[in-house]
Amino acid sequence: MSKLKFSISMSLDGFVAGPRQSREEPLGEGGESLHEWAFVTRSFHQMQGKEGGETGVDDEQAMAWSENTGATIMGRNMFGPIRGPWGDEQWKGWWGDDPPYHTPVFVLTHHAREPVEMQGGTTFNFVTDGIEAALEQASDAAGDGEISIGGGASTVQQYLRARLVDEFRVHVVPLLLGGGERLFEHLDGATADYECVESVASPTVTHYAFVRTRSG
Amino acid sequence: MSKLKFSISMSLDGFVAGPRQSREEPLGEGGESLHEWAFVTRSFHQMQGKEGGETGVDDEQAMAWSENTGATIMGRNMFGPIRGPWGDEQWKGWWGDDPPYHTPVFVLTHHAREPVEMQGGTTFNFVTDGIEAALEQASDAAGDGEISIGGGASTVQQYLRARLVDEFRVHVVPLLLGGGERLFEHLDGATADYECVESVASPTVTHYAFVRTRSG
Repeated sequence: MSKLKFSISMSLDGFVAGPRQSREEPLGEGGESLHEWAFVTRSFHQMQGKEGGETGVDDEQAMAWSENTGATIMGRNMFGPIRGPWGDEQWKGWWGDDPPYHTPVFVLTHHAREPVEMQGGTTFNFVTDGIEAALEQASDAAGDGEISIGGGASTVQQYLRARLVDEFRVHVVPLLLGGGERLFEHLDGATADYECVESVASPTVTHYAFVRTRSG
Repeated sequence: MSKLKFSISMSLDGFVAGPRQSREEPLGEGGESLHEWAFVTRSFHQMQGKEGGETGVDDEQAMAWSENTGATIMGRNMFGPIRGPWGDEQWKGWWGDDPPYHTPVFVLTHHAREPVEMQGGTTFNFVTDGIEAALEQASDAAGDGEISIGGGASTVQQYLRARLVDEFRVHVVPLLLGGGERLFEHLDGATADYECVESVASPTVTHYAFVRTRSG
């Protein structure tokens, strides 16, 4: 099985998305600010086919986000705002024509749907038979690469609770969102299996890397 | 009124005390590790009348904890494990003969008790008429000094919710305690009034300073 990882930005008060998520603000109020540190890096610019961007600590972390990633798994809300059946199926996700994943993406959902091929190597596949099935399909698709959980919090929590995550990075931004999706809850003791192996700070964000040091 | 502040160590998953607090482990399982960064500093050594200790970023933060502090407010559980009436009143707190406060301390409780004078300038006073009364008494006692909320989480939250806190520091340690007392919850939007004005990292802890930038 390919290595399973995630890399996620979190506010100092523990949220990976802000309160009152909506079609206009899919990351909730203030949620987009959690990713500002990444948006300004050279890696992120390159990922969008743009010149420039900052180098340094944050850039290295942004690079690590996509490095060696052969497949991505995400919750349905990370794909789009539609709930229940897909309807006319025209919605192709929050991410525009050329999503930043550039890998096969496996979207967890209760509603079957044909795969949606986007530009730049991203194909959205819809998995209706649970997180372990998604992991198997992602592992087949990833080849020698790793599998990244794209989010959101509840998807990350499901994989942590199932003791399936090998390593993760948390990028803490000194914002207080006051509400939203909390990362570290509903974990059933899963985090006891991990140890921080690296912490590195830039003026705007502190990056932590955790690896699994024992099996749950 | 004197300035009201707090300075608190928090795990990366948001807890200021670990799970399963007991008389043997008043900070809960893993809770004491949150303070390791402070214990090794020169300031902390001095506070205990000892030689040595480390200097640098963490030492400056440990120094700021007690600097200009003229009075301290704490919740009853920070004083000791006794619940309900005080009984024979022999329990003089977790903190030993010479508690690290060296100021008048105002303990929030529902049960009246005569003040308890300790060595080194710490006197425990017991306040039964609420957080605002405690703040007034602490302010009288503090003189030109500031008032520090010693904890725990629920006392800090009460003062934040009442919009009475002027500034605070959070020291984030890359541990995952998995449970315990969470700092940033039950805050009723209070944190929206604060802005991070400083973040500085050592290899073991990242220190954040927040100040109130608007009145709630």
